[in-house]
Amino acid sequence: MNISLEQLQETLYKLFLKNKFTSEKSRFLAKIHAETTLDGVNSHGINRVPRFIDYIKKGFVKVDEEAEQISSFGMLEQWDGKLGPGIINASKSMNRAIALAKVSGIACVALRNNNHWMRGGTYGWQAAEAGCIAICFTNTQPNMPPWGGKESRLGNNPFIVAIPRKEGHIVLDMAMSQFSFGKIHTYKLQNKKLPFPGGWDAQDKLTSDPEKISENMRGLPIGYWKGSAFSMVIDMLATLLSAGDSTSKIGERSDEYGISQVFICMDPNRFGNADIHEKMLQEIIDYSHDVEPMKPGDKTYYPGERTLQTRKYNLIHGIPVDDHVWKEVLGLLSE
Amino acid sequence: MNISLEQLQETLYKLFLKNKFTSEKSRFLAKIHAETTLDGVNSHGINRVPRFIDYIKKGFVKVDEEAEQISSFGMLEQWDGKLGPGIINASKSMNRAIALAKVSGIACVALRNNNHWMRGGTYGWQAAEAGCIAICFTNTQPNMPPWGGKESRLGNNPFIVAIPRKEGHIVLDMAMSQFSFGKIHTYKLQNKKLPFPGGWDAQDKLTSDPEKISENMRGLPIGYWKGSAFSMVIDMLATLLSAGDSTSKIGERSDEYGISQVFICMDPNRFGNADIHEKMLQEIIDYSHDVEPMKPGDKTYYPGERTLQTRKYNLIHGIPVDDHVWKEVLGLLSE
Repeated sequence: MNISLEQLQETLYKLFLKNKFTSEKSRFLAKIHAETTLDGVNSHGINRVPRFIDYIKKGFVKVDEEAEQISSFGMLEQWDGKLGPGIINASKSMNRAIALAKVSGIACVALRNNNHWMRGGTYGWQAAEAGCIAICFTNTQPNMPPWGGKESRLGNNPFIVAIPRKEGHIVLDMAMSQFSFGKIHTYKLQNKKLPFPGGWDAQDKLTSDPEKISENMRGLPIGYWKGSAFSMVIDMLATLLSAGDSTSKIGERSDEYGISQVFICMDPNRFGNADIHEKMLQEIIDYSHDVEPMKPGDKTYYPGERTLQTRKYNLIHGIPVDDHVWKEVLGLLSE
Repeated sequence: MNISLEQLQETLYKLFLKNKFTSEKSRFLAKIHAETTLDGVNSHGINRVPRFIDYIKKGFVKVDEEAEQISSFGMLEQWDGKLGPGIINASKSMNRAIALAKVSGIACVALRNNNHWMRGGTYGWQAAEAGCIAICFTNTQPNMPPWGGKESRLGNNPFIVAIPRKEGHIVLDMAMSQFSFGKIHTYKLQNKKLPFPGGWDAQDKLTSDPEKISENMRGLPIGYWKGSAFSMVIDMLATLLSAGDSTSKIGERSDEYGISQVFICMDPNRFGNADIHEKMLQEIIDYSHDVEPMKPGDKTYYPGERTLQTRKYNLIHGIPVDDHVWKEVLGLLSE
């Protein structure tokens, strides 16, 4: 079914209010979940809402807690999320990084004991809206084997880069796994093979069969050994800078909470005006767009381009939401 | 043949001196090229020396020029490399980022108009030796198609992350291409297939045949569309922050010079002592090492681990250097 942004936001607002968030926080959580869904990332928008409510009930998400600064050294700060709602803590951390970057050009806020920040791209869009560059990343529970190993010991640790641009921000939002288990599950339901290998079967062979990957839950890192190494250094940076828990510790828990995140922000605006920056970015975009496609009719895109297209389309036509998920959310509201 | 570190360094020192570098700069350039080769990265050490000398002769590398600061905004600085030697400019920029980070926790130096920095990992090791975290990257000439496109319009834009560690620094040094053309060439000479697809053939099909990839010079980005997007944002960040040339501009030249680089540095030492950091990193390393290998006898590694092994081995047994390359270098010296 299709739902308007307003209806989605209003429903979620009531649900969060019912779960004891303040009116202000309920509005904000509803806004972020709704906007994520508007952008077509249902997996980290509306679809995650039931689990978020479940985590509140289980005590993994502390409704009243909020991130606070623990220590600081110049433009490098350490914050403790105190297991508050991930979106609110992450957004607060990015806001702090933006404020510092506007004073000193670059800043970094490292956040420990946070909950899932849902769509990582959210904090990239947030920085870009403030005219800033963002580099942020999070660790996760283990879901990929280190290269050469049998068992999942690395997280897919999403990595985000955002660059502000008048005509549409550049936002790269990329997990270290070639395919998310959500995507693999979708292929399985559709009885289709993945377009490329996405994990290992029981015989430790790389496979494009979503069924076999789902059975073993060992995702393939992007670029094989390269993504494996990149994932490990993301975990190291997040753990070290936030003095938080690593994927190793997170993996000991029944569920994914108490994770570590890093928000780096840069303000490029003193190095030339927005028009000059626009021209530089456009040159790079034009160069990659102006290429003959491998398959006739195909196009190349810059990171964030299709998100904007989806956003525009869904604003007009309504946001596609899975019937079961919507029923579940309404059920939680009328419980 | 095998050569000692001292012999390699002394020979290169004389060669750089002969090419009109000051004694101090000759020493430094010799040291970095020799250490890179010692670490087994001949492709960016001794093997690149003839081309470096050639670029000096062609005027692409200006022997007497050195990077200077153009503008600064707090901990974010813009430098111009003035087409000086890439290693000296990059090292100076990283030193500046280290000095700033030690004052304010985090800093960034963006460098334009530089020459090839040879092994990107060099600047990671440099920061780690100073007790700092580094994130650095460079753009390059185009050598990979943007995802879905036919022609190479993206650079393989190496990306480096370094984390200091007493027992051996963590250094990830990763190009955005699955295999370098150097590596592909080596497989071709050995008449072997690549272990995974590494580029496209003339029919726009992904292939593991090094011969076919070499004919078309279209490298495969790590993680397909993901590495394509990551490569593009690296180019955007490097271009925007340094006000330098993008891969698009670099691609217009006959050779690769005048490139843009970024050096981000963080000093984590105020957030806990080295012992605590050591423990955090060791936990992550142990977790990934302590895994049953897919192939009996195999091991998993952290980024930088094998570099240290190679370094130790070559220090004892001498540095393997290609006979032809060595003869060429000696030839340049006696010209």
